[in-house]
This record gives sequence, C-alpha cells and structure tokens, in this order.
Amino acid sequence: MNNINTFSGSLSCEIVTLPIDSKEILYDTSYYGQPKDDILELTLIEAAYLIYKGKITVNSENKKLDFEGFMCEASRRTGNFEVKYIVFKDLRERGYFIKPGVTDFRVYPRGGSPGRTPSRYFVYVLSERQPMLLTDLVRQIITASNVKKELIMAVVDEESEITFYGARLRSMKGDMDNSRSVPAIRASLLEDRVMVWDSKSSAQLHNEFLYGKALDEIRLQLSLIEAAYLLGREVVEIMDSKGRILTPNDFADQAVMVESDFPKKLAVYKDLREKGMVVKTGYKFGSHYRVYKKVDPKKGMLHSEFLVHALDNNYIFNLSQLSRAVRLANSVKKQMIFAWESGETISYLEISRIKM
Amino acid sequence: MNNINTFSGSLSCEIVTLPIDSKEILYDTSYYGQPKDDILELTLIEAAYLIYKGKITVNSENKKLDFEGFMCEASRRTGNFEVKYIVFKDLRERGYFIKPGVTDFRVYPRGGSPGRTPSRYFVYVLSERQPMLLTDLVRQIITASNVKKELIMAVVDEESEITFYGARLRSMKGDMDNSRSVPAIRASLLEDRVMVWDSKSSAQLHNEFLYGKALDEIRLQLSLIEAAYLLGREVVEIMDSKGRILTPNDFADQAVMVESDFPKKLAVYKDLREKGMVVKTGYKFGSHYRVYKKVDPKKGMLHSEFLVHALDNNYIFNLSQLSRAVRLANSVKKQMIFAWESGETISYLEISRIKM
Repeated sequence: MNNINTFSGSLSCEIVTLPIDSKEILYDTSYYGQPKDDILELTLIEAAYLIYKGKITVNSENKKLDFEGFMCEASRRTGNFEVKYIVFKDLRERGYFIKPGVTDFRVYPRGGSPGRTPSRYFVYVLSERQPMLLTDLVRQIITASNVKKELIMAVVDEESEITFYGARLRSMKGDMDNSRSVPAIRASLLEDRVMVWDSKSSAQLHNEFLYGKALDEIRLQLSLIEAAYLLGREVVEIMDSKGRILTPNDFADQAVMVESDFPKKLAVYKDLREKGMVVKTGYKFGSHYRVYKKVDPKKGMLHSEFLVHALDNNYIFNLSQLSRAVRLANSVKKQMIFAWESGETISYLEISRIKM
Repeated sequence: MNNINTFSGSLSCEIVTLPIDSKEILYDTSYYGQPKDDILELTLIEAAYLIYKGKITVNSENKKLDFEGFMCEASRRTGNFEVKYIVFKDLRERGYFIKPGVTDFRVYPRGGSPGRTPSRYFVYVLSERQPMLLTDLVRQIITASNVKKELIMAVVDEESEITFYGARLRSMKGDMDNSRSVPAIRASLLEDRVMVWDSKSSAQLHNEFLYGKALDEIRLQLSLIEAAYLLGREVVEIMDSKGRILTPNDFADQAVMVESDFPKKLAVYKDLREKGMVVKTGYKFGSHYRVYKKVDPKKGMLHSEFLVHALDNNYIFNLSQLSRAVRLANSVKKQMIFAWESGETISYLEISRIKM
C-alpha cells in the first residue's frame, strides 16, 4: 500500500491532518484539503475518498484505520456522512472540483477549479428520508444567491441513487389584460361549485375571460376559487341555494368548510390573476393550479407553462412527494412552482430536475 | 315549452313521479326511471337531466321549477348532487345507459341496455376534494365484484372535468427463484444504510440476487429494507458502527427511527420478494417501490412493471395525490399498485386511469 505517493495522516475530531509535503500532489494539482501553516487539513469526506483511492492512510489513536474503520468512525462523528460521501464521490468522479461550503459543498463548473474560476453551485445534500422545511430551503437559496451561486439539492435515495434539483426563487408574470370591466353577473353556490345561469354572462366569462367550465350550452360552472375571486372584484353576486345573497365573508366561510386549503389557494390565485396569468385547476397533475402566461380566447387553452402548488409558509417537504411532483411536471413539459404567502406578498419557488 | 312529448312530474322527497303515459317514451326506448304501478319514478339526477333536455317539467308545492330552481332544490335534498349530475350527463351523452346502483350508478356497456344486456360497471362518483377511505373503496370493489361488475371511480375536479379510474384487487406474482441459499455475509449499519465490505459477498448479493447498489468496485450498500429482509433470512450478520452485532429486533428498532414507515414497507417488501419479484426503490417515481416480475442478472434492470406504495389499512386517499401517482405511473408505463397488511396477508389494489 505505502508507495511514494501515499501520505499518512491522523484523525482528530472532524479533521484529518497531513504533513505539508502532501500539498503539491493533493492540493496544488487536485484541490483536496486546505493548507494551513505546516499541514494540509482534509475534511472527513475528502479523507474517506482519498483512502478509497489509496492516496492516503489515516491513523487514529495510534491505530491505522482501513476504509471500513474510517467510514464507521466518520459516520459516528458527523451527521449524514455516508450520504455526503456518495454525492462527493459522484461529483468528483464526473469531473467536478468540490470545496466545503456553507451548504455542504461549493462546486466548480466543469472545467473550472479553485483559485482559477469562481465556484458556481452551492450543493445541499439530503437523504430522501429527511423532512425538508420550506424555510430552510429558502434560507439556503438566499445564502447562495447573495454570493451569486446557484443552489442545487442533491437528494440521495434509499438505494444511493442521486437526483439533482435546481431550486430558485422567481417572479411570475403573464400577458393577459385583466383590467377590462365585466358587467355584474348573478350566480348560485350549490354544494361545492358555483353556477352562472344565464347564457350571455356565461359566454362572456368563459369565452372572453376564460373563467369556469360550461355545464351545457347555457350555463357555466365556476370553481369556488374563481367565484371567490370574482366576488371580491364585485363581478358576480352569489346566492346560496335558498336564495340568500352571500357577502365575500359568508362565501369564504362556506368555502373553507368544503376545502380547508381555500385561503392559501385563493391568495395565490389572486396574485397570479393580477399578474396577468390565466389560472386553471391542476388537479389532473396533482397540483393546485396549471398556469398560462397568455391564452388567446379564440384558440382556447393550449399548453400551460407552469404547475403551481400553494403551501403554508411553515410547510415541510416530503422529498419523495417532491420528487413525484417535479417529475410529473417535467414529464408534461411544465415547470413546478411552489407558492406561499409571506407578509403581504406571494413568493414563488421553482424546483426542477437537472443533470449534473 | 309544453309540447306533446313534454311530461309533467312532481317532486317529493328524493323522487320525481310522472304519469305512466310517459313510460313508452322515457322508459321503454330511453331507459329513464322505474315504472311502478301507475307511475314512472325518476331519480333527481334523471329528472334534472330531462328538464335540461326539455322532456319534462317538474312541480313542487304547486310551483313549477325551472332548471335553476330544480338544481338548487335537488342539491339541498341530496349530497354530492351536482357532481353526480355532471357524471350522469357526461356518460349519458356519450352513449351509455345508466341506472341507479349501490355505488351511485350501474352503467351498461356501450351498445348494451337495461333488460337486454347485463350492466358492466359500478360507478362511484367522487368530488376531487372528498377524502376517500381505503376501506370504503375496497368495500365498493368487493360489492361490485360479487356481482361480477368492474368498479369505476369517476372523480370530478374543481373545474368539473371528470377523470375515470378502474380499481381492482389483484394478486402479484414474479418469476424469480428466491430459494437458492447465500452464504452468511458480514455487514455494518452506518447511519441510514448498510454496507457490505468484502468484494466477493458484494458481487454475489448484487449480481446474482440483485440486492443493493455498488458503492465502488469492492463495497455494496444495502437499503435498510433489503438489510432487514436479509437479516431475517439469516443471510447477513449486521454490526453497528461500534462493532456490536444487531439482532433483527435491534435492527428494526433503529430502522423505524430513521423511517417511520419501515414496518409496513418491510411487510410488503417481504411478501413481494417471497412471491418471486424483484423490488427496488421507487423514490424517483414518488412511490415506495418499483417492482419487476423477472430480472435477468446478465442483462441488468430493464423495465419495471409496477410501482407499489405501502399503506396503513386505515389510510385515507387524497384524490389529488392519487391522481398524481396514477398519472405518473402511467406516464412511465407502469401500473400503480397500493399494498397493505390485513391480518396475515398483504392485499394489492391496482388503480389505473381509463377512458370511458
């Protein structure tokens, strides 16, 4: 094992230290570790990988650790070690240089290297079983974007396959003119949808403004969300099945009983509509909405660009469900967007699978 | 409105009664309603549809109800009325004859009709927002299958689009020989996966029996589930990172802390493996497992036929999530299967989108 290029290091706490004569081979040409005075410091991840490659040996308490011994030690000393090792090994072997970073790793673009080019990605490593707080993810994205890096989530599944996701905050903007006025329209709330009974109003709402779905040649059904939005804008007057007129508050009280997500869904719907987008149900895709930048009423609904799902701002992602959502969105050529209300504004988070 | 073919009925409770002279036109040729002595009885759904078609008028308390009035009345008298009406109208207009049934509707095959052919489907109508108990769905499937009908779920989304799903209980069976013995193998539990350290055992488990994933040329990683299964069969001996040997109970205690779904996932894994199937993670598809009937170790993993998700037997489906799961499975040409333990056995439920 011990040849001229094998260096002997020692493990203490969460660092492996090597004599400085390792610097030329390990650091100067391959960018492992961090030189400090007369030593080279390696992270546990780097050390494990260099043991595997036969480039170093490591002693702890005067005992030489083999790869197995080192993995067991490192896994006891630091959380999520195996999972980080898997991602480090994968990226390194596919030509990326990697440095420790605030979010697990800083990664250089292909062809780039430390000292020569800036790093491009902040990589955030997760095991598929880890619950991920929306707030945590957003904090990581902001940390990365403050120093102009892209945040990449590397999710390691049960069988150690890695899926990479790009995550970024973004704005939403459509091209619909939402300012034209519509005459007041009369409608009824039945059990869980709202019916517009006269054919002229139905046609106008549906054909010009793309609300609702035709029940038949005469009548239009509005979803609760559409109805609440139009009621808020005083475009419709809604009665219950006994003929009583509902105020926006009455309506919201009834709607929230049918659908507990109603308030957060409505806030997102309103924001998207006011940003000039057309918003329809995303039920068939398992999301709250499918969203169009622009729809030409003459040509009808063609391809929606986005799936949007409304979250509470204390939401916790289950990564398996996230995987399903993003994969499905991609398979129908849409972008997966999560939206939530924070203060007075709605934030939008785009998550997409990427190839590294 | 009142022409020779318009009959006048009256609403009482949940039935509309018509004079028997309507039988020839409405029942004998179009199969609406149920003749009883000297009257024809219509369900509220049938009556609403016939008002819409201009074939009948309906009075209630000496007042004529128009379509709007009737819809409001019916929706107050019976749950889920609008949703059922939407499904009835859709199927009827696409050439199906429909009768009331234990699960909302009995539907005749295209070209078939009451009295002449048996009905083929039991249709169970749901609004996308309704939570659906696994036990309820299973009861409906059994009710249907006892009289040799197929159960169809008709899920109506917020915008009144209908998605049809076929749901059936089924058996699972693979073609792998699982009986050959494997020599005892030593492995370590790190944080949330198990490592096999020697290359011969690694190669055998992986290449011949399709367990685990190679960490590198020498070592194999097993998932917690695979490790627990092999430990139960006494194929592996597992140590923790301090070198203590774990009993199957120790191991299960640790695994359930990492993954609360562990017991139900393991029960399903075991059953599928023992039925000769190859079971790998379905993480990328948002399900617990992807399952192969047979894998030729020489050719490697090709196309898995199933996605299998393990449920508690008191599980409640969220229909939007169900839609996403089934749609994703279909888009990758797999069947979506839900599995749960009941008593000593595992039951399997297949749900697939169908075109009516």
